[in-house]
Amino acid sequence: MQAYHQPDEIRTVTNRLLDMLIDYYSSPKSSKAVNYRSKEELVKAFYQSEPPNEERPLDDVLKEFKESILPASVKTWHPLFMNQMFAGASFPSIIGDLMASMMNPTLATWEASPVATIIEKNVSQWMAQMMGLPKGSWGIFLPGGSLSNLIALTIARNQFFGMDIRRTGIPMEKKPVLICSEASHYSIANAANILGLGSDHLLKIKTRVNGSMDTNDLEEQLQQCDRNHQTPFAIIATMGLTVSGCFDPLDEMAGICKPRGIHIHVDAAFGGGMALTQKGKRHFTGIEHADTLTWDAHKTLHMPLTSSVLLLPNPQLLKSVFSQKEATYLFHPQPEHEIEDLGKYTPLCGKRFDALKLWLLWHTYGTENFREQAENRFKLTEDFGAYLKSTEDFHMDYQSESPISCFHWAPKEWQKVDRKLRAPYSNKLHRTIREEIKQDGNAFFNIALLNSMDQFRFILINPLTTLDQLKDLVSEIRARALAYCNKHPQPFQSSGEQR
Amino acid sequence: MQAYHQPDEIRTVTNRLLDMLIDYYSSPKSSKAVNYRSKEELVKAFYQSEPPNEERPLDDVLKEFKESILPASVKTWHPLFMNQMFAGASFPSIIGDLMASMMNPTLATWEASPVATIIEKNVSQWMAQMMGLPKGSWGIFLPGGSLSNLIALTIARNQFFGMDIRRTGIPMEKKPVLICSEASHYSIANAANILGLGSDHLLKIKTRVNGSMDTNDLEEQLQQCDRNHQTPFAIIATMGLTVSGCFDPLDEMAGICKPRGIHIHVDAAFGGGMALTQKGKRHFTGIEHADTLTWDAHKTLHMPLTSSVLLLPNPQLLKSVFSQKEATYLFHPQPEHEIEDLGKYTPLCGKRFDALKLWLLWHTYGTENFREQAENRFKLTEDFGAYLKSTEDFHMDYQSESPISCFHWAPKEWQKVDRKLRAPYSNKLHRTIREEIKQDGNAFFNIALLNSMDQFRFILINPLTTLDQLKDLVSEIRARALAYCNKHPQPFQSSGEQR
Repeated sequence: MQAYHQPDEIRTVTNRLLDMLIDYYSSPKSSKAVNYRSKEELVKAFYQSEPPNEERPLDDVLKEFKESILPASVKTWHPLFMNQMFAGASFPSIIGDLMASMMNPTLATWEASPVATIIEKNVSQWMAQMMGLPKGSWGIFLPGGSLSNLIALTIARNQFFGMDIRRTGIPMEKKPVLICSEASHYSIANAANILGLGSDHLLKIKTRVNGSMDTNDLEEQLQQCDRNHQTPFAIIATMGLTVSGCFDPLDEMAGICKPRGIHIHVDAAFGGGMALTQKGKRHFTGIEHADTLTWDAHKTLHMPLTSSVLLLPNPQLLKSVFSQKEATYLFHPQPEHEIEDLGKYTPLCGKRFDALKLWLLWHTYGTENFREQAENRFKLTEDFGAYLKSTEDFHMDYQSESPISCFHWAPKEWQKVDRKLRAPYSNKLHRTIREEIKQDGNAFFNIALLNSMDQFRFILINPLTTLDQLKDLVSEIRARALAYCNKHPQPFQSSGEQR
Repeated sequence: MQAYHQPDEIRTVTNRLLDMLIDYYSSPKSSKAVNYRSKEELVKAFYQSEPPNEERPLDDVLKEFKESILPASVKTWHPLFMNQMFAGASFPSIIGDLMASMMNPTLATWEASPVATIIEKNVSQWMAQMMGLPKGSWGIFLPGGSLSNLIALTIARNQFFGMDIRRTGIPMEKKPVLICSEASHYSIANAANILGLGSDHLLKIKTRVNGSMDTNDLEEQLQQCDRNHQTPFAIIATMGLTVSGCFDPLDEMAGICKPRGIHIHVDAAFGGGMALTQKGKRHFTGIEHADTLTWDAHKTLHMPLTSSVLLLPNPQLLKSVFSQKEATYLFHPQPEHEIEDLGKYTPLCGKRFDALKLWLLWHTYGTENFREQAENRFKLTEDFGAYLKSTEDFHMDYQSESPISCFHWAPKEWQKVDRKLRAPYSNKLHRTIREEIKQDGNAFFNIALLNSMDQFRFILINPLTTLDQLKDLVSEIRARALAYCNKHPQPFQSSGEQR
């Protein structure tokens, strides 16, 4: 195996890598967003029931990846890949990820990862600062927003019920209640499960048209909790709701929950980046009440998966919940210092150096560039919203507050018909068109249910996406919609006319 | 920002990267394992309270990393870096990690990550096969062994107490009990905390001299649980104990626990690789009783952090615990097929393509090479053990069963003195020597408490480490130990002589 560590081999392989990087980055539209092939076809081509027993030159395997696997994969870097809350990743951050793999530190102990520990703490501080958290806030990098939410809620639970819970377990007799809205991310339901609460102890508050939490319902539900002798211990405010991209009313929620001592977790995994924009930052009023905050840099800051941070005004809480006296072979007593073993701050032991790619990207782009990028994404979303409004047949139910646009197609004659009546037909039309375009491969976006109707959902997070591309796509959707209607009679229309 | 995606820039940067990779890999001993500098010095050099606001050429930042950050970091790829349960990473797997970052899929849905989904499922199947799990076993890649253990124990809890627990929460009134040994990894204690159990509900079984579980105590403790009306629901068998590297008696444990319906989780995070060796595989007798199994490929298979897999004979269990009906915007109904959306199998949503680096490495090296490497690591550990035995002053308390050697120095005249009596002096000597050598920088290893005495702990997982290097290091330790004794009088010796 040493063969692969010789300069010649490294040179050959790295040259192929270079070709691949140049192809991939310098012409993002050179291939389709999706080279659609059926599941059966792909399984036949790539599934391999027996592991490869014999060795093979690395360069050959790399060639196979380049010529066969990469082309059959979805190109998340494509300007019209709008299906996920991330899209590709900036070249400097890719390089940073490779450097982290090569260096391969573990963010558990200072002595094994000295500079890495400083950089992780440093970058998290900068992020807290950008997010407007109080001075002294910092946090830890965790592999993904779902996990950051889980860790935040573990802290909330343990702190609210007293740190003795680490010994005694969860006090179910107190009827603990975790509060979120109907539109919060599904990781909250998974966290309730893992934490031992169960969905009976997860209180979901009603939402308004744009998906944001209805604080009247929150107030009522909290009073109901009092009457039922339940104990609400934490609430999740989502900044950048998964479906609509809108914001929960953090300030109002804090006004209701803070006096009751309820832990406020801010899930800004997606919308965090909007705090950098002029228009977006108003949604962050009340951020000083956040006890914990999740922000995924792999979403807004255009980094590779995963680069999620859990930030806290009081990071010592992490230590109270997770540090323990067992691993004496790893954590040795140290003199007091502001830099400590980060392994005591998380339930993870081996932890990837995810902060490095953001460190590299930040030093390359600078904060101002991040801010400008966020403004651009927001402007594109606004312009796209305005364009949709200018058409007669495309409709948005809400004003975009972050780079997500949910909209549906409904020609004039449909608009007199009740939404619920036309929903089954409309939903089928939307799903069919989305599937057709995905299989065509030039664009890839999702469908989401909003206000009882399936909508196209474009996530405009890719810096390469332009308004003209979106307009063309909208025209294509219209043409396909009209063709669909021609082919399939619309039941509600005739019945609408008869009435 | 587009500037960084132009061929010229990519070419310049990739060339610097190439130099760095060649330097790093082709002469592993070209720099020290540790370029020791004090915490104060490093903080002064690297800590930056304000984020960088202005942009800067990427190549400059990369140069800073190469010339300043990398040299100040611990070189985990150095043959005498033996401090962690991993050491560096093979060049092909580094390249694979970069490819995953570039491609940046998310292992949540089939449609967004088709080939990635096939590869992840495929590689996990190969791992299950290597580990000797029943046909049909596969699993999911998770970011680290601690998290794999947490997910395994969530499954154990939910399955044992009935899937209704997802709704009702943990039935504390049944006095649930999680069983592990005193020597199990600290992630188990953290899991007990997160799962809502608390340490009162974590039963720790006594261990034998080599750290393996004492099954007599297990039997007794289980009977005690019956008398106390407690409900033991899961037990952890550690294959490759953190301190000694030895194995829990899986077969015996299963014999005691299986009839009681207790979930058997096998934590083979470190020792999994030993299943590939002739001598090691006998410890895996009874593996067919495993309900869940953790294996970290970043340990044995020499990959970058993280590459951990949770394997199960019945992977559908993952779906029963984690899939939910909420995220309809993401998971769309699909016709039945053996390949499904992996996002339904984990509590994570965005998930890095960690399987790719192992796929690439496996295709490059082949299974037989993995096997040979594991045999080599084990042989080195055995040879080193034999060498220590041949000296008069170095001692191992146990027979190594995987690539960890814990040993202490005790010259002839000490050996008549009770261990506990000499422990305080001996511990200080061991800790001082370890610190001196670390600060010197040529080698980096840890200290662990075993049988009431601090021991040097060498983790021999790096394919570059040779027996001669270890012998030289042992000689250096001896010389330093004698020097220490000369400088510091030994209290127990004179008192030993007086008696």
